[in-house]
Amino acid sequence: MESYAGYRGLAAELLREAGVSVGDEVEVVKEGKSYHGFLMARYEYGDPEVIVLKLGNGYNIGVKAVYGTRVVKLTASSQPSFKPPPPPQPHPGLPHVAVIGTGGTIASRIDYRTGGVRAAMTAADLVSIFPEIAEIANVSAEVLMQVYSENLTPSHWTWVAERIDQLLRQGVDGVVVAHGTDTMGYTAAALSFALQKPPKPVVLVGAQRSSDRPSSDAATNLIAAVETASKAPFAEVVVCMHAWHSDDMIYIHRGTRVVKMHTSSRSAFQSINSQPLAVRTGTGLKLLTADFHRRDEDGYVFNPTFDEHAMLVKFFPGMKPETLTILVEKLGLRGVILEGTGLGHVASSFVPVIRELTGSGVFVGMTSQCRYGRVNMKVYDNGRDLMRAGAVPLDDMLPETALVKLMWVLGRFGGKPAYEDVKSLMLKNICGEIGARTLPQPPPS
Amino acid sequence: MESYAGYRGLAAELLREAGVSVGDEVEVVKEGKSYHGFLMARYEYGDPEVIVLKLGNGYNIGVKAVYGTRVVKLTASSQPSFKPPPPPQPHPGLPHVAVIGTGGTIASRIDYRTGGVRAAMTAADLVSIFPEIAEIANVSAEVLMQVYSENLTPSHWTWVAERIDQLLRQGVDGVVVAHGTDTMGYTAAALSFALQKPPKPVVLVGAQRSSDRPSSDAATNLIAAVETASKAPFAEVVVCMHAWHSDDMIYIHRGTRVVKMHTSSRSAFQSINSQPLAVRTGTGLKLLTADFHRRDEDGYVFNPTFDEHAMLVKFFPGMKPETLTILVEKLGLRGVILEGTGLGHVASSFVPVIRELTGSGVFVGMTSQCRYGRVNMKVYDNGRDLMRAGAVPLDDMLPETALVKLMWVLGRFGGKPAYEDVKSLMLKNICGEIGARTLPQPPPS
Repeated sequence: MESYAGYRGLAAELLREAGVSVGDEVEVVKEGKSYHGFLMARYEYGDPEVIVLKLGNGYNIGVKAVYGTRVVKLTASSQPSFKPPPPPQPHPGLPHVAVIGTGGTIASRIDYRTGGVRAAMTAADLVSIFPEIAEIANVSAEVLMQVYSENLTPSHWTWVAERIDQLLRQGVDGVVVAHGTDTMGYTAAALSFALQKPPKPVVLVGAQRSSDRPSSDAATNLIAAVETASKAPFAEVVVCMHAWHSDDMIYIHRGTRVVKMHTSSRSAFQSINSQPLAVRTGTGLKLLTADFHRRDEDGYVFNPTFDEHAMLVKFFPGMKPETLTILVEKLGLRGVILEGTGLGHVASSFVPVIRELTGSGVFVGMTSQCRYGRVNMKVYDNGRDLMRAGAVPLDDMLPETALVKLMWVLGRFGGKPAYEDVKSLMLKNICGEIGARTLPQPPPS
Repeated sequence: MESYAGYRGLAAELLREAGVSVGDEVEVVKEGKSYHGFLMARYEYGDPEVIVLKLGNGYNIGVKAVYGTRVVKLTASSQPSFKPPPPPQPHPGLPHVAVIGTGGTIASRIDYRTGGVRAAMTAADLVSIFPEIAEIANVSAEVLMQVYSENLTPSHWTWVAERIDQLLRQGVDGVVVAHGTDTMGYTAAALSFALQKPPKPVVLVGAQRSSDRPSSDAATNLIAAVETASKAPFAEVVVCMHAWHSDDMIYIHRGTRVVKMHTSSRSAFQSINSQPLAVRTGTGLKLLTADFHRRDEDGYVFNPTFDEHAMLVKFFPGMKPETLTILVEKLGLRGVILEGTGLGHVASSFVPVIRELTGSGVFVGMTSQCRYGRVNMKVYDNGRDLMRAGAVPLDDMLPETALVKLMWVLGRFGGKPAYEDVKSLMLKNICGEIGARTLPQPPPS
């Protein structure tokens, strides 16, 4: 059942039939009583069958739609709910940063008259919401798509990568991608492989709390992202998000190393098995490493294709080995990333199945569900048996990054690639996804 | 192909045919040359087809087995490789702690003459390796099984739970379970549900580095575990492992809240969304909470059955919704725990499949792959749609604990339980697996 301005069921049906939109003046008649006001969107909490009206006195009222309820449209919303500001004046001498919207809550505004949320992704919107941006860069902005990030697929990664490639070739000084936070880590990894050694920084940014909330991280994150895109000495795909409790500390994470580590905290994003590239505080951008691809350095390679016939499988006690065979057969998989235990193990009952799969050319890569550290399958008998069966230990690569990389590697080869070709590309460090040094996990809180 | 004292292939075949054991005096003849020494086990790194002999001068030599190599047994190992110490004298007045070995490296000893590793799990062994134990408790010890922890299944959990139940009914003052670290978190959760409100503490303990290594955490962890089992005021299923860099700091984690967070670090185990119950330092056990089930408090319930028709599925961008249908159908699943993104999302393309599954009585629970924080599916449209389709948000329960709990809940009901019964038991806090307060993730390192 489709949502209608956030309404569902009978309420959605009544509103659709009456042809009313959010902001329209309506009359709702229920059980002999008549309610008169402006229709509000039902965009967050609450019963989606309760029609919400803003009354003349400014208060809202909810009317639960029941059989017999009538909705009458009186007048259409007389004015746009939000008057767009005039386009910002370009400042000569400032760098040009292109902002691409893909969805998410970083730059949305709530219309307080109707309760609706709309994406604010024209350059004018951005500058009017976040005026500091105009002092950093001349911004152009576009909404490429409006998708909740959990609905993004590898085809969307390709689409975003293609647009970034166009912008880079047009000579922008940096690109900012506004993105929902749920799968931002996956997209960052995907763009890292698709846009290798780009000439300018490609900066993903999101907000854990939308810009209408007082605790929002939208402004600080977006300003840091625009600054990174325009000035940072590194030109890699990075994620720019709130670092820790303090409001003025933002981390810039390498795209292949970053994971959303908390469902709701503003400082949810962390670099795993790696330091962030830089930190931005009140005094500007401070580099945390010298090991990066530099702005305007040569070597740009654009390869935006992903093959979706790959899967991430998290092992658990009692998992049946035939799970792998079933998935490979039924979904036509060409590769599997296992998220094993500890140093990279699954039950030894998986050895014959893995031997069979790798023998038939299906790549099987091993990562760890421990989150921190690197796999080492040489320590125990079982690990060695799994390796002999063809499972490939993927060092300290994150499981999520390993999956994205596998989709990208399979996309490189037409038809059925040789196992050894896939393996050797998977083991080659392409954009910082494999590291040399084992780092500890952060201290317990 | 079976391993023979760690050897494989031709080497294993030759040794097996010659009937030699580790420690035997042998002659290996290869390409006209003869090598004479004591057979060493091939227990860790190295080519498993290279036969290793300890020569008379104390050095080792490796002889690669090739076609034509001969192995001759000269004399059998004349003495046991390790002379067991006499059983320890019980100290009247000390508590009685039962130690159960399930596998893992916490209490093994290497025979430096042969290179072999054997489990050291008699009470005498333990006391001779870790003499401090004798001052804390009278220990009885047994090897219940010898299984790499990644090979443990829910049937093993039942087996261990049954043995613990026997020991508790016999009146021991606490139980210690030595366990491999790979799946110790899963077993701890399983025992928490199987042995609810036990009269005495049940303490799982492991070592990230085996006891023959100078950096081993085996001694400190085991001593802390025995102390916890004999003295702690709480009687719950807990995990006792190295807390942080300092050698004398051990955390005691609640069994439903603990995860292995690093592949190799000694302080790999962390409590997630919850404080540890206690910390042990040089000065003894310090409680970190007052909210626990107490020693000898009433309420013990023993329910050791698990139904394995449940699966943990980690969502990723591009995952096909039919993945769930295929797994449920082919594996006869009665429930699925999704590890979604952010606040508990999967792509909205999963809505129809989830509706179909839950409609046919298959439980679908939602957790987050973020590791920290709680799911909240009411914030976004998509989350609400998934809930309407029947997906059940599992609050701040860890995905691994949710899977174990689902296996246990399904084990409670014979045949095909009502969806609502499974749901209501899944949402009931049974042994600390659901918490009231949202904690931040630890600070970045």
